[in-house]
Amino acid sequence: MVCESSLSEIHEGNDVLLYLDRKRTYLVKVEQEKSFHTHKGFVQLEELVGKQYGTRIASSMNIEFVALKPTLRDHIFKMQRKTQITYPKDISLILMFSDAGPGNRVVEAGTGTGALTTSLACHVRPTGHVYSYEVRTKFMESALKNLKRAGVSEYVTVKNKDITEGIDETEVDAVVLDLATPWLVIPHAYAALKGSGVLVSFSPTIDQVVKTVEALKENGFVAIETVECLMRGMQIERGKTRPQTLMTGHTGYITHARKALK
Amino acid sequence: MVCESSLSEIHEGNDVLLYLDRKRTYLVKVEQEKSFHTHKGFVQLEELVGKQYGTRIASSMNIEFVALKPTLRDHIFKMQRKTQITYPKDISLILMFSDAGPGNRVVEAGTGTGALTTSLACHVRPTGHVYSYEVRTKFMESALKNLKRAGVSEYVTVKNKDITEGIDETEVDAVVLDLATPWLVIPHAYAALKGSGVLVSFSPTIDQVVKTVEALKENGFVAIETVECLMRGMQIERGKTRPQTLMTGHTGYITHARKALK
Amino acid sequence: MVCESSLSEIHEGNDVLLYLDRKRTYLVKVEQEKSFHTHKGFVQLEELVGKQYGTRIASSMNIEFVALKPTLRDHIFKMQRKTQITYPKDISLILMFSDAGPGNRVVEAGTGTGALTTSLACHVRPTGHVYSYEVRTKFMESALKNLKRAGVSEYVTVKNKDITEGIDETEVDAVVLDLATPWLVIPHAYAALKGSGVLVSFSPTIDQVVKTVEALKENGFVAIETVECLMRGMQIERGKTRPQTLMTGHTGYITHARKALK
Amino acid sequence: MVCESSLSEIHEGNDVLLYLDRKRTYLVKVEQEKSFHTHKGFVQLEELVGKQYGTRIASSMNIEFVALKPTLRDHIFKMQRKTQITYPKDISLILMFSDAGPGNRVVEAGTGTGALTTSLACHVRPTGHVYSYEVRTKFMESALKNLKRAGVSEYVTVKNKDITEGIDETEVDAVVLDLATPWLVIPHAYAALKGSGVLVSFSPTIDQVVKTVEALKENGFVAIETVECLMRGMQIERGKTRPQTLMTGHTGYITHARKALK
Repeated sequence: MVCESSLSEIHEGNDVLLYLDRKRTYLVKVEQEKSFHTHKGFVQLEELVGKQYGTRIASSMNIEFVALKPTLRDHIFKMQRKTQITYPKDISLILMFSDAGPGNRVVEAGTGTGALTTSLACHVRPTGHVYSYEVRTKFMESALKNLKRAGVSEYVTVKNKDITEGIDETEVDAVVLDLATPWLVIPHAYAALKGSGVLVSFSPTIDQVVKTVEALKENGFVAIETVECLMRGMQIERGKTRPQTLMTGHTGYITHARKALK
Repeated sequence: MVCESSLSEIHEGNDVLLYLDRKRTYLVKVEQEKSFHTHKGFVQLEELVGKQYGTRIASSMNIEFVALKPTLRDHIFKMQRKTQITYPKDISLILMFSDAGPGNRVVEAGTGTGALTTSLACHVRPTGHVYSYEVRTKFMESALKNLKRAGVSEYVTVKNKDITEGIDETEVDAVVLDLATPWLVIPHAYAALKGSGVLVSFSPTIDQVVKTVEALKENGFVAIETVECLMRGMQIERGKTRPQTLMTGHTGYITHARKALK
Repeated sequence: MVCESSLSEIHEGNDVLLYLDRKRTYLVKVEQEKSFHTHKGFVQLEELVGKQYGTRIASSMNIEFVALKPTLRDHIFKMQRKTQITYPKDISLILMFSDAGPGNRVVEAGTGTGALTTSLACHVRPTGHVYSYEVRTKFMESALKNLKRAGVSEYVTVKNKDITEGIDETEVDAVVLDLATPWLVIPHAYAALKGSGVLVSFSPTIDQVVKTVEALKENGFVAIETVECLMRGMQIERGKTRPQTLMTGHTGYITHARKALK
Repeated sequence: MVCESSLSEIHEGNDVLLYLDRKRTYLVKVEQEKSFHTHKGFVQLEELVGKQYGTRIASSMNIEFVALKPTLRDHIFKMQRKTQITYPKDISLILMFSDAGPGNRVVEAGTGTGALTTSLACHVRPTGHVYSYEVRTKFMESALKNLKRAGVSEYVTVKNKDITEGIDETEVDAVVLDLATPWLVIPHAYAALKGSGVLVSFSPTIDQVVKTVEALKENGFVAIETVECLMRGMQIERGKTRPQTLMTGHTGYITHARKALK
């Protein structure tokens, strides 16, 4: 379960992130009589029960792994397999713009793998709720599994509906969109939001952004802003310090706006 | 108060963000018989009492403002006057890396204006706590005022202490550093953190980063990563769409790592 | 005169770049009985005659300047006053893409201040020629002055004509465009270019680029590519090394393509 | 041969760039009875003799290629096989900073594959010269072959010498460095340069840059500046326009400076 407050000790049923090095980490559930196989030998997971997170554990080939407590970011990276990835750099900005906090009611679409859904759920807990629309059935099922594993299902309602046809909820604090035609949702979002509520939309192409911003202007939104965020890794080593050679050049643009009453 | 769950109506004593346009917004407290003066005329704030957030209000010169509910990001932007700014793009990534959530106990230094402190407090509420170290007395006083206005004082203990000399707390979930010599804090951070706990450090110069990463490697941290984040605004207008001409080229590098047990 | 081969000694009539520091440089012509006034005192320019470029000269306030030989890049920076600047980073890429070399015949529009014109002229000398179209008379006059000062007028014909109505030249090696409606020039450019000739277009907005690329595809161009180039200055100082805070976030997109025969 | 003025017609012995699409181009020499094999069938190169550059030619599988005249940039891309690549974006800036023009004498090290050497040679022709130092014998041989193919050998002297031990030439216009320890060359570069002459250095790591800038300051250089250049490709297509997903995040920093006389 992500975002669980303050457990220090690993229990049966908990997830751990087995860390070998920056590029090789494995998200596994700790169970009795279960071993995890890697190309560096297998790890007896039951040995971890009762240990502190952060403990080191040797594989059968005597290679040392660290049993980290998975963060929300770790879950996000591991969760996304079947759809286009939403990057932590973008999720963190979307969360900031959406102002999601405890008690907030947030509408989201599409659910996708549930990575952004999980992040929003973590922030609106324990008294808020996320209503997540997904029109593609197969994504919905995969997302439900991911939300369950992340331990946030009770804070999320996934709806197998096309959000471009309407939003059921009203008086919501934020609407967060990551879908192909966000501009079609803007009038529904205006209807669903409280006054001053936030709309956030993530889109890969300029054309989507232009249409969405036009729809926002026509539908009574203000404080409209679009940004893109580039993140570059650094190789830090005395005498060899430099930015990393490879970089993700583009994921998408983030547009956010506020509902003004008419 | 930031991050308050779901108020829709403006009450006396509430903050509102008066929005004129993207570059002109004003954070004001709504009080009886109080008017707010701008170069576009004055606004009678008491008229807002009982209205919904998002309502429009005309100034004495009949210019329309929108009374938005201030987000955490709005508070951050308005809060930072006396010290170097920490940008929302960086704060959002620091929050993501720190994995701060309800119930977490987080150590932070330096407090500065309290912008990052407020953000962390919002995320660990209602059962967690932020212990914020600030050695410069004048910043401390200004930060206390800002935390009070943001409504998060009860979740924060500001300490007038030099964190490079030691951390009082133990078994904390995260240590977040934004100060001149983070490398001096690393051994104390290791002692203060739980196993698997997170360290995040923000520094403007490469030299600070190199020393900090070296200290992390020497003190039992793993999963060490340094990134920089560039955010670029877009001007979105059909036929004139382009990135904005001016851009912040650098704020700082963010380094994060996890404590492995020895 | 820019790009002059190998003079080491300063003669009367030569340009020098008086260098005080990175932000304060002055392009001046060395003449008898002429002094140059700065806020750091005046410099007797005639003292420079017969000295080597690179010599130091003290002002009347005993502040030391260095008398550098102006490079093409120095001329470009000083030349651009009346129109939107074309940045050296962009000019250097445009030159690379255009493949301009000795003997080439290049068509350019618009002339603007003549910064790009001068750069192209330097590269096609001594046997090539630049045909530069400028519809705005006042720019044309200013450009002619700048070309003369840069010593490249004999390699350039500036034409007071609207290039969207046609190109007089044929069998040219490259067409280089920096104007508001490049897409209107593409059919004329195809007619003017040799087989395999290069088209390069610089535009600030996405919309200009989309229209231009569509016109290129429709008119028999291949190897079409659009890039943007970001340049960031570094502050290099042991213990304080970091990227500079301010940065130009956008100048324009550069599109280049080759003419395929039909 | 690169940079050859104005040939329009393909002759036997000429290079052509066979263009299939943006990712598939082939640099081949046109010879009698020679065919070029690709996965799209083979192309009879002798058919190209007497045709115009830019002509289309069908392979044995009836796939159309365009026979482009290779630009300097095409040669650079194809030349670099055995050593770290210097990117056209960096070469174009290095050329701009070095102010290389006809008649200039330029010292360069190391030669590497000869990509930068070729570029410099193209710019100093026909009356200038490039002196290129390369300590690694195997690179030297490969470079000589590349220079010959590019048709610029007569403008270059490649020296199998370690430039950190000294520079033979004096009164040169520019010194251009792309080697592991540029700071060791700075005193020699000062001795070799004319007054006001330019030093340009390309280095991947921050540590190299810091040492080089310190050496420049200690050795009488002024106008010292370090930049990095990021180039991002755009995918231009109406309705789908966006920056490309993948991007080179770092190649190296470019430092340039001018020699002031003492």
